[in-house]
Amino acid sequence: MQQEPPALSSAPLNLQLTQFSSEPGQSNSRSARRAAHLREGQKKPSGTSRMRAVVSLSICLLVCLALGLACVLLVYLWSSRFRGGFQWDGSELEFNWHPVLMTSGLVVMYGYAAVLYRVPLTWGQSKLPWKLLHSGLMLLALLLSVVGLCAVFDVHNKKNIPCLYSLHSWVGISAVVLFAVQWVAGFTGFLLPWSPLSFRKLLRPLHVWLGGSILTLSIAACVSGINAKLIFVLKGNNHTEPYSRLPPEALLANSLGVMIVAFGLVVLRILTNKKWQRPDPQPLDTAYRPLNQEEND
Amino acid sequence: MQQEPPALSSAPLNLQLTQFSSEPGQSNSRSARRAAHLREGQKKPSGTSRMRAVVSLSICLLVCLALGLACVLLVYLWSSRFRGGFQWDGSELEFNWHPVLMTSGLVVMYGYAAVLYRVPLTWGQSKLPWKLLHSGLMLLALLLSVVGLCAVFDVHNKKNIPCLYSLHSWVGISAVVLFAVQWVAGFTGFLLPWSPLSFRKLLRPLHVWLGGSILTLSIAACVSGINAKLIFVLKGNNHTEPYSRLPPEALLANSLGVMIVAFGLVVLRILTNKKWQRPDPQPLDTAYRPLNQEEND
Repeated sequence: MQQEPPALSSAPLNLQLTQFSSEPGQSNSRSARRAAHLREGQKKPSGTSRMRAVVSLSICLLVCLALGLACVLLVYLWSSRFRGGFQWDGSELEFNWHPVLMTSGLVVMYGYAAVLYRVPLTWGQSKLPWKLLHSGLMLLALLLSVVGLCAVFDVHNKKNIPCLYSLHSWVGISAVVLFAVQWVAGFTGFLLPWSPLSFRKLLRPLHVWLGGSILTLSIAACVSGINAKLIFVLKGNNHTEPYSRLPPEALLANSLGVMIVAFGLVVLRILTNKKWQRPDPQPLDTAYRPLNQEEND
Repeated sequence: MQQEPPALSSAPLNLQLTQFSSEPGQSNSRSARRAAHLREGQKKPSGTSRMRAVVSLSICLLVCLALGLACVLLVYLWSSRFRGGFQWDGSELEFNWHPVLMTSGLVVMYGYAAVLYRVPLTWGQSKLPWKLLHSGLMLLALLLSVVGLCAVFDVHNKKNIPCLYSLHSWVGISAVVLFAVQWVAGFTGFLLPWSPLSFRKLLRPLHVWLGGSILTLSIAACVSGINAKLIFVLKGNNHTEPYSRLPPEALLANSLGVMIVAFGLVVLRILTNKKWQRPDPQPLDTAYRPLNQEEND
């Protein structure tokens, strides 16, 4: 059966539903009158208020896009201009891949893939290609992160420095392992044809929560990693100014950290704002359907 | 007017509302039948399913309580057993107040205050005392954080070390400043009698988002702070083993970082699970009413 495309003007689910939540027992109280007044305002969202939500979401998405690009640019500049560029030879130049790939993969690509469903341009279309793109971008983000880990492991091994001793590394490796688990569970639950409904129902809230948690872990790992790297390299010897005097490299890398944090918070804002959710024609719990069902419906 | 206490058996708002979300146009499709089946399961939540939600929430709250206590215990042990204890004399012993107060205030007390409304014991009662307790605990958490900042500023000033140069300090000070702004805005919007409805309506989603963002910043600040402190003090000289060999102090402080991250993620899980929201008799937008209105109703 051909699936009807959802109207772009559909009100978000929570707005549609609030009109049924009246409490007759409170009709004489002031709070009930206030509530009725508020609900009246929500009952039939005007074209203007819907347009305002789309405009504010679009601005937020553009800010997200810009912050992500700024993160990639800053981390590239830090590694190339201040840390000597890139090689794959076990030296510090190989290490430079680590911040670039973790920031690009575990933070920026991950964040872009996470907010994909919120892009208003996708709302009037079938969800399947966007699910596949979400999954594909997430896989690319995971691969970039794994290569970023390989870079630092390789450098540590060649220099006989133990791996995974610092809190930064514990948090970072947890983020990547959970990301891999999340990707496999998401692919199995939401894309494989034989995934049972009960599994998807159980998985969906966990997928959403774990998605935000992985981003939180990534932010903490990036902030601690940048901070640690600056402590290690800006010691005030070898013609470098100490970190405490905030030389240009420290300013740039600190700004990178601030951009990463801002990017993460904007992504979490986009994901948690109910008014910006994709207005799905299906009820909430069937929004994720395995691949073959999506094709058949 | 006396406010009627809400029945403890009230279904959470989202569950009550989903029964009105049918899409007649889809009645012949397989997805609509699946959706109808799912909604049927949600329409009248049985006593067993409600009890299951309360039990799982209670377990999560107990885990949250235990993790918070573990964080305070571990940071106290780190500062007292490995870092020499506490003084207020501009020495490293004064610095030791910093991790203890930031962990206790900006993370643990903050997290406890944030999940307060989710405690099932509070559901059958008026919201006002819990709002006051939420506000009071948050103020205490803010004060602990400010004293924690004073400790590190005092030590830096007495040792002629610049303040606020590291990424850790930038993220940490942002968390505390935003926390102060959040507290003032929350008090003004949700407790002062003259706060207009429109301001509260605008403030509520921002208050929720900023609340989660501050916790995310706090986690990033704690992880980077613990990591940096261990790099500074475990250099492998002065009878200490280097950080890279994971001596007992490193294991304990790394574990503290892991506990802080786990605590934060559990708090965020409790806050974002819609099924665990306080079943309020008032519609959502009037859940926060200024002090005098709550008393009058």
